Formats: sequence, structure tokens, C-alpha cells
Amino acid sequence: MALDEPSRDAAALIDRLAGAGRLAQRRLARSDSCERARALEAAADALRSDAPVILAANAEDVAAGEAAGLTPAMLDRLRLDADRLEGIAAAVAAVAALPDPVGQAISRDTRPNGLVLERVRIPIGLIGIIYESRPNVTADAAALCVRVGNAAILRGGSEAVRSNRAIHAAMVRGLESAGLPGEAIQLLPTQDRAAVGAMLAAAGLIDMIVPRGGKGLVARVQADARVPVLAHLDGINHTYVHAAADPDKARRIALDAKMRRTGICGAMETLLLDAAFPGSPAIVGDLVDAGCAVRGDARAQAIDPRVTPADDADWDTEYLDAVLSVAVVDGPDEAMAHIAAHGSHHTDAIVTEDADVAERFLREVDSAIVMHNASSQFADGGEFGLGAEIGIATGRLHARGPVALEGLTTYKWLVKGTGQVRG
Amino acid sequence: MALDEPSRDAAALIDRLAGAGRLAQRRLARSDSCERARALEAAADALRSDAPVILAANAEDVAAGEAAGLTPAMLDRLRLDADRLEGIAAAVAAVAALPDPVGQAISRDTRPNGLVLERVRIPIGLIGIIYESRPNVTADAAALCVRVGNAAILRGGSEAVRSNRAIHAAMVRGLESAGLPGEAIQLLPTQDRAAVGAMLAAAGLIDMIVPRGGKGLVARVQADARVPVLAHLDGINHTYVHAAADPDKARRIALDAKMRRTGICGAMETLLLDAAFPGSPAIVGDLVDAGCAVRGDARAQAIDPRVTPADDADWDTEYLDAVLSVAVVDGPDEAMAHIAAHGSHHTDAIVTEDADVAERFLREVDSAIVMHNASSQFADGGEFGLGAEIGIATGRLHARGPVALEGLTTYKWLVKGTGQVRG
Repeated sequence: MALDEPSRDAAALIDRLAGAGRLAQRRLARSDSCERARALEAAADALRSDAPVILAANAEDVAAGEAAGLTPAMLDRLRLDADRLEGIAAAVAAVAALPDPVGQAISRDTRPNGLVLERVRIPIGLIGIIYESRPNVTADAAALCVRVGNAAILRGGSEAVRSNRAIHAAMVRGLESAGLPGEAIQLLPTQDRAAVGAMLAAAGLIDMIVPRGGKGLVARVQADARVPVLAHLDGINHTYVHAAADPDKARRIALDAKMRRTGICGAMETLLLDAAFPGSPAIVGDLVDAGCAVRGDARAQAIDPRVTPADDADWDTEYLDAVLSVAVVDGPDEAMAHIAAHGSHHTDAIVTEDADVAERFLREVDSAIVMHNASSQFADGGEFGLGAEIGIATGRLHARGPVALEGLTTYKWLVKGTGQVRG
Repeated sequence: MALDEPSRDAAALIDRLAGAGRLAQRRLARSDSCERARALEAAADALRSDAPVILAANAEDVAAGEAAGLTPAMLDRLRLDADRLEGIAAAVAAVAALPDPVGQAISRDTRPNGLVLERVRIPIGLIGIIYESRPNVTADAAALCVRVGNAAILRGGSEAVRSNRAIHAAMVRGLESAGLPGEAIQLLPTQDRAAVGAMLAAAGLIDMIVPRGGKGLVARVQADARVPVLAHLDGINHTYVHAAADPDKARRIALDAKMRRTGICGAMETLLLDAAFPGSPAIVGDLVDAGCAVRGDARAQAIDPRVTPADDADWDTEYLDAVLSVAVVDGPDEAMAHIAAHGSHHTDAIVTEDADVAERFLREVDSAIVMHNASSQFADGGEFGLGAEIGIATGRLHARGPVALEGLTTYKWLVKGTGQVRG
């Protein structure tokens, strides 16, 4: 199908793809866990045996991207080599090996009238994944969906269109070789933006949308979607160093939270130093020495002459870079008020040896992830022991924080009787 | 505030109410479970001591409703008397006594690096309840929300406006007397429909909307809302009587599922009789004898001369009345295909003594509630042991089937470390 399929057909296209996807999903829902695992192993094998085709397609994407003037960072996200492709295949095989929550009983109860009630995990249904330049998402997201019996409609970035098609074709061949329907993973056959709009509007056809990419993409999806969206927009993460913090722990945690990797959503963006904490100069000094640009309020500027003034916008900025805003606060109430006013409900942490204050912070801070004496960079599905993640969510419903297989399931009630009537 | 507050101010009104509600909710989130329980007991007491005021307000609503020509059924839903009001107060006290899921750990894991990860239940936040003529919802829904630390914005029907205000005032006085903020329960001060529109649009301010009422209300809310909605639109519930059904059980279950109460969402609307089941004449005979109008396909009409022809629309109709559509099917595959084509994912049941067929039906039918050898009229939070329900949901995310206290919570991750950095 041509890339320039006209936008007036977008809704019809999504109707058709969703119909095929829902049919395939019903077949997946009847498959057992081992069948789905074997199909993903076959998909991993297909990715490996298709390596020459996939790498050639990727080389064309990279060449087109260079001609189009993509930045080096974008080209790096786009580029595959033999090692990266093996990593993609290995990740699909790893998802195949993950424990499967589908069929698990969440609760079980026998009523006085003898009715047995169970809630069991089931697939959500048909999931739309909208992503940008990294072609690995084509394999990753599809594998996570299929592992728990969901079908997926994938819409990748234009710059990776050839790579995505080659990866998609291998995945489909793998599923089909194992007897599962290839329509379980469909790649949108057009890069027309109207098709994305139609996906976002397809309430009742697509059950959930997961945007994977930069803030612009996520914001557009959240603003326009009528389908429920699982995502986070910002990770404006705070670390509050309390008066009773262990100075060494606080130094290590603050440096890691900001500087280990500055571009990930779990990176610290604002450091709140308690005025009563004596170790602040060492923390700020470490950060500046490590190459971090530190912007602070008046009291933070007084800690180290290299701290530059922060303006109002700094407290609401996710830098995703070696930049940090620092405020000095008077006690936990002021710290938590700052987080409530400026946080994005992603990951916020306290460093303290005072168990009562820690307990209060954990209870009262209203974020998907709240940490005590740990680096916010642990906000990650792998680090949480989930094996993988489809993303991190900061919405309030369904699944929060790192979302992996369990977040890609829902449940139904089973009621087992022996002829009971309500009478 | 006047009832005719102009609609151009609707968004500003909802902004203001939501701001106050979110502030009150933060206070509720810090309260402990006993504090919330005591506040609801105080609210129940206030409802009792305000009985003269509430009943007088209700009498005015009823008089206005009579003058406006409300139907007897609507007037009955609207009317309170001393017994009904005591029932409302007792229901609030019963919610106070329910076990509270907030603070419960859903999961707990210690990672190899020593990090302790817990998921704990927390309130959702600010919940909008949009309902029709029954004034008891003002107390019921508010009590369920507050029990688990949510704030609520209530918008009841115009015909019950005086009753709702009197009930709301008593509830607020109860909360305040126990030291909780009255703004935890706010009643929309206007019946302007634009304010409802503003509630539905208030994504990020209101966390969830629960519509309580007829299909017209639910359909409008589902169509217009940008805020997540927890509800069901239809309860087109099927009972499939398999070839290996016990004839006596099947008779009792079918009669109860249809006729115990015909107007509730768990009532059976379509009966699927297996062609190989010998007991169909008795089942159909019972139903017709009980006053049910039975409409059937050709084979169903052949079972009993009193069965009238069904047309295409019958299979997609929720009668909520003593009317039933009956189809004869050849085996479980055809039964499940009919349910997949015409069901509303609410409650579907099989009657059979064949455990394998039952297991397959329970696994494959994609409804919020799937039953074996039981009447679909058990689809109810009280019958499920939940103590109460805010409604039944047929969406795929967050909470499904009867939704009670647990469905009014979400979770956050707590990460407890000893100085771990990701390094």
C-alpha cells in the first residue's frame, strides 16, 4: 500500500485493521501461554534469520535520514547493526520467557450461598502503539502485547519505515510459523498523520493506546485520544534531602539520580535541600564538578558560587540534560508542597535516616513511584523486576509506574454455581 | 447560588469546585481509615437528625414533579419517606463499616540489590458522579468515595434538587463535625447542563466520572467525556442452556434470570437454547406462564406456539422488561458466536453439567462477568460480597463488573532503599 494513502480513508483503514486485529486477538485469547511463548521464540528466530534483509532496509532508512538532515542523535536512534539487531531478537525471546499473568486468579471467594467468585486476568484486547524513530519498538512492543494475548496495531516513525516493515515481516512470519495469526501484529501501511488521528478516535475498536516517544508525541496523543492512553508526559522528578539524611548516601544518590543518565524519564530534575541539612555543599559541589549546570533559588546560590539563578520556569522544567534546579526548603512540609505544586507524579524520592519522616513522605507524596533512600534512576521496569516495560504511566487509573505484562492485562469475574437463583 | 448560573461560566465553576475538591481530597488522603469511618457515621447521624428538613425538601420536589407531570415511576424513584431515609442513613453507616482497601499492599518484592518494592492502594482522587432522580445516590455515592479517601463532585437530577441539597447539607455537616473538610463532597450549585459538559471535559481536574442512571445519561457521558468513565451502557445478558444442562436447574435459572426483577441490568435479555437440549419446552412454557413475552427465531417459535417472531433488532435489545428473545443454537461455538456478535460484555451465563464445556465458556466468553450454573441476576456488588457498589462497569480498563471500594482506589509504588544507586 502506498505511503500516501489519502487521509479521507483514514477512518476506513483503521476500521479494517481493527476488525482484523480484533479477530486475531480472539484467536490469541484462546491460545495457551506456551503457544504464545513458542510463537515469540519463532519470531526471535525469524528476526535473526532475516538479519541481512532488516539491516539492508535499515541502511536505506539511515541513508534517507542523512539526506534529509536528521541530527546525529536521531540517526543513532534509527541505526541498527548486527549487535543491535541481535539485542532486539534476544529481547523478544526474553519476553517469551517471562511469566505470564493471563489466567492468574486475582481473588477467589466463596459466598454463603455456595457461589464461587474468581477474578482472573485476561488480555485487554487490541492495543495501538504509536512511536518514533527507534525501530526496536516494533519488536519490543509487539512481543509484550502478544505475550499476554493482545493484538497490536503499530505506527512507527516515518524515518524508520523500511526498518519497521522488515522487522514486522519477520515477526509476522514467526507468529504464523507457530500457528498464530499474523494479524495479531499489524503495522499501519501508511505514514499519513490522519491515520494516527483515526487510531486515537477509535474508541470501542482499539482498547488502549501506548505512545512511545518524545513529549511532543505524547502530548498530541493525550490531547486528541478518545481511546484510553497509558503514558507519561513529564518526569519532573524531585529528590528531597531531609535534615536527617546520611550525608554520604545523599551525595551518592543525588549524583546518580541526576548524572548517571540525564536523558531518561527517571532522572532527577529538581533537588530539594533541607535548610537544616549540613551536607548540601558537598552534594552541590559533586554535581557541578561532574559537569551539571546547577540553577538555584537564593539560598541554593549561597551554597556554591557556581550555582546560577533559577527562574520561575525552571521548577516546571524536565531538562533531560545535565541541568538541575535546586531549592532550599524548610522541612518536609515545604518539600512536599513544592512537589505537589511542581511535580509530574512520576518519581519522587526522599533521603533521610528518620523512619517517621520517610514513612510520611512515602504516604503523602502523590506520585506513581515514591522512593526512600534510593536513586530515582531505578524507575524502570527491568529494575522493578518486571522483565521489561512497555512504558511508564503517570495517569491515575489501570496501571501506574513501570507498565509491563500485568499492565497489559485486565480481568473478568468468573461465577461458578450449582444452580443458584437469586429468588 | 442561583439555578440559572449562566453556561459561559460553566468551565470556571468546575475549575473552582475541582480546586476545592482536590484540596479537600489531599486532606482526606492524609486521614486514616478510622477517621473516615467516624466521619461517615457522623454523616449517617446527621441524615437521621435532619430527617424533618430532608423529608420537607423532598415533599416540595415531589409536589413540583407532580405539577410537572412526572410519571408514577419517576415520582416513586424521587419520593422519600421515613423508612427510605432511614435506609439511606443505614447505608452510609454500612459503608463506614466496610473494610477499607486503602493502604493495603497489592504486591511486595525485594530485589537482589536490597530495594524493597511495594504497591499500595491509594485513593483515585476527585470523582464526578452524575445521576438522575434517585436522591439516595447523593448519600450512597458520596459515602463510597469518602470511605476510601476520594473527594466527589455530585450532579443529581433537576427533579430532586431540593432533596439532594438537604441530603448534601447533612452529609457535609457530618463530615465537618468529625474534622474532615466539607468540600470533600460538593454538590453542583447549578442544574445548567453546560456544567455537566464542563465536568466531562475536566481531564486532569476530575480523575474519573461515574454516571448513574438510564441509558440516555450514560450514552451522553460516554460520548462526551474526556475524563475516564466507569460505567456500563447496556446489559444485553445471555443465558446459554447447553445440551448437557440439568433440566431442573436450567428452568429455575432461566426463570429467575429473566423474571425475578426485569428492570435491573443483570436481567437476562436473550436465552440461547441448544438444539440438543431436551428441556426447552418447559423453560419457554415457564417464562410465558410467568407473563414474559417471548420472541424467537424459527426454531424457538416451534418450541411453543406462544412464541412470537423476533426481528433483527431483538438480538441487540436490552428490554429491561418482561420481554425475552430466544434463539436455538447448535452447540457452544454457535452460542459463543451469538454472544460475541450481540452481547454487551456485561454478564453471560452457561447452564451445563459438562465441566469441560463450562470451563471453555468461562474462558472464552469476553464479558465482565461470566457465570456457570447461576442466575445472571447475581450480577450485583452486594451479592458479590463487596458490601455495596458504585455501579457495574463493562469497559476493559481499571475495574470491571460490580465496582465498589477497591474500584475506587488506584495504587502507587513505594521503593524503600538503603542508599542504592543505579551506577
